Amino acid sequence: MARQNILYAQSGGVTAVINATACAVIETTRDHRRQVGKVFAARNGIIGALQEELYDTSRETKSSIAALRQTPGGAFGSCRYKLKSLEESRAQYERLIEVFRAHDIGYFLYNGGGDSADTCLKVSQLSEKMGYPIHAIHVPKTVDNDLPVTDCCPGFGSVAKYVAVSTQEAALDVASMCSTSTKVFILEVMGRHAGWIAAAGGLAGERPEDPPHVILFPEVAFDRKVFLRRVRQAVTDYGYCVVVASEGTRDGRGRFLADAGTRDAFGHVQLGGVAPYLANLVKGELGYKYHWALVDYLQRSARHIASKTDAQQAYAVGRAAVQLAVKGRNAVMVTVERTSDQPYRWKVGETPLSRVANREKMLPRKFISRDGFGITPSARRYLSPLIRGEDYPTYRNGLPRHAKLKLKLAPRKLEPFEA
Amino acid sequence: MARQNILYAQSGGVTAVINATACAVIETTRDHRRQVGKVFAARNGIIGALQEELYDTSRETKSSIAALRQTPGGAFGSCRYKLKSLEESRAQYERLIEVFRAHDIGYFLYNGGGDSADTCLKVSQLSEKMGYPIHAIHVPKTVDNDLPVTDCCPGFGSVAKYVAVSTQEAALDVASMCSTSTKVFILEVMGRHAGWIAAAGGLAGERPEDPPHVILFPEVAFDRKVFLRRVRQAVTDYGYCVVVASEGTRDGRGRFLADAGTRDAFGHVQLGGVAPYLANLVKGELGYKYHWALVDYLQRSARHIASKTDAQQAYAVGRAAVQLAVKGRNAVMVTVERTSDQPYRWKVGETPLSRVANREKMLPRKFISRDGFGITPSARRYLSPLIRGEDYPTYRNGLPRHAKLKLKLAPRKLEPFEA
Repeated sequence: MARQNILYAQSGGVTAVINATACAVIETTRDHRRQVGKVFAARNGIIGALQEELYDTSRETKSSIAALRQTPGGAFGSCRYKLKSLEESRAQYERLIEVFRAHDIGYFLYNGGGDSADTCLKVSQLSEKMGYPIHAIHVPKTVDNDLPVTDCCPGFGSVAKYVAVSTQEAALDVASMCSTSTKVFILEVMGRHAGWIAAAGGLAGERPEDPPHVILFPEVAFDRKVFLRRVRQAVTDYGYCVVVASEGTRDGRGRFLADAGTRDAFGHVQLGGVAPYLANLVKGELGYKYHWALVDYLQRSARHIASKTDAQQAYAVGRAAVQLAVKGRNAVMVTVERTSDQPYRWKVGETPLSRVANREKMLPRKFISRDGFGITPSARRYLSPLIRGEDYPTYRNGLPRHAKLKLKLAPRKLEPFEA
Repeated sequence: MARQNILYAQSGGVTAVINATACAVIETTRDHRRQVGKVFAARNGIIGALQEELYDTSRETKSSIAALRQTPGGAFGSCRYKLKSLEESRAQYERLIEVFRAHDIGYFLYNGGGDSADTCLKVSQLSEKMGYPIHAIHVPKTVDNDLPVTDCCPGFGSVAKYVAVSTQEAALDVASMCSTSTKVFILEVMGRHAGWIAAAGGLAGERPEDPPHVILFPEVAFDRKVFLRRVRQAVTDYGYCVVVASEGTRDGRGRFLADAGTRDAFGHVQLGGVAPYLANLVKGELGYKYHWALVDYLQRSARHIASKTDAQQAYAVGRAAVQLAVKGRNAVMVTVERTSDQPYRWKVGETPLSRVANREKMLPRKFISRDGFGITPSARRYLSPLIRGEDYPTYRNGLPRHAKLKLKLAPRKLEPFEA
């Protein structure tokens, strides 16, 4: 087999550990010099691939590549740009193959969630039809944890750890002062479609009196009365109430609470903010003093409190992607397979992309307690190993040392293309 | 000198390291068995002292006291309850002395900010007048960093580190995706009266292109036009703009932006939220996609990313408080004295409470850059050492091990008192 290059691209929302995957791809390639030449990284994801903006990672130092392992965000840039069907987006797919051909790319490693799995499969199919067969490997990444087949998704464990730790810490603060101050604290977390991240908040406590006292999942229709009763009960029993609310919490008609018609000073509808909505409800109906937090990007970029399990898996899937590619695999996704709950054991596997594309793994109903406000023992068995272990970055002057890349583009060989 | 007991109380908002101070008070007392009997800790701060709710810390195990060092929040409870002047609150002050007398308390260690310094001084004065002279020592604590005389306040360094690290991490996330997604990210931080915490966000970057590109301080009147121009410039020059905004940001007439008349679905004025206010402004005037975060209690309870310098100082002031008390000092506050910027060196000192009470240390104007949106080199010299060093808690199953106290109240000796 002739030596060919790798094209690596990041897709969709970035995570605290996606760069660990990138690091693994680049470092593992060094062990496969006979089959692989360079690793190109697409600038800003698939858009850069289309526009022939390819960073030449061979221009980076070994130490800055190693530092990727502890750097959050997407070091080469990412984007939300979904290629549609082969019919609708034919020009884009053909352009991709053209870029592959021009840069002697034999391996396409696409690092993302569900949308990118679909794209990856189509690239594989079309490249074959166009007579330039490529090895297309999907490398899983998403804080949403919603990819099928794989036991979990790299990126999720670190958000889960951040949310569990932060819930516990903030709850200690609230508990200290609840006799005279804040009674209800609401933490809003990500997860528009599925409650995986909200569920992770449940790891903060074990006994009924432990916070969080209420978790709101997108999977459970929000009922004002039941919610308020539950909050009042917690305040009566424990002196305070901690709520972890998914941004995707919906009412019985399926409407997001965050879109509940809050208007700003200019009269614009204010999007986002389940937490302030709930806080106002609690204040208005129960009269309790409240505080709320909405952590947004902080939760998915918090590399400083990354889960070691997650960081190791993020590296492992990148490494496996290269190994599968050079073995000639195509149209597969790397997976994490759990072989044991206790002690937790896992290994890397693979699955055909046809089993992955366009399927979402929702939070199982058996993970949500019967009352709809907590997590079950089986949820704990699943979630707990994913937040285990700490994997601290190195620091200088009190701040983490993040990778500083040169980001040198490879010379263009084609005409410009309007993505 | 006869052996007497210590009463330790926490006051006001708690911090990530106030329990390290409590730990130091209890542990140091073991070295002074001849002068000190028990350490009582008031339940929920001064209210517990008034109501004769005193935890007997001798009932706790050594290991759970040691674990306080890594536990955020206020382990014995705290409150916001300010005793007024001796005339207005005479009954309360007299009750305190009565409780002291009943429990043979010779040392009052009050761990708090400006209000508690004032109370501590008055307790000292009145105890003398009432013929039960007590050693009243104020132990500094406040994330607001606004106590005078002391170089810094335990609690602040850890919030500063949290804000600097989080700003850097979230900015990497935003930078990764700004070509097609969020252009403006706003992080709202604490500091109603002074911009110390917002200034700490400035440590995240060093060069003009580094985030945060805009810091909003309570000390600088917010000017819509200038702000919007600055945001647009950053987006044009760097592709994105990161804003760190103090919750205390005010307009030219001194009104908090957070009170700018935002109304929720019920038509209630929605308090809090400089970040959503600014986000809407940016969207409405510049059309940029935005995200925002409001971290609230998470920032002051984030023991997992505490500054080692801060944790050491929090312990040191607790230790010094006991040492000063047994030496017979009275009506003093323990201070942190900086003896060198580079290398950073500090020692513990003391100052008369009369120099502390009712004085706030504001962020010096020389710490804010001329354009009002950044910090100066002298701010960096001051702030940088305070976030240095990491002081990780120990973990079990992925979560920090927090102290679990028995919290046994000492038997009452007095009639109930309505605080």
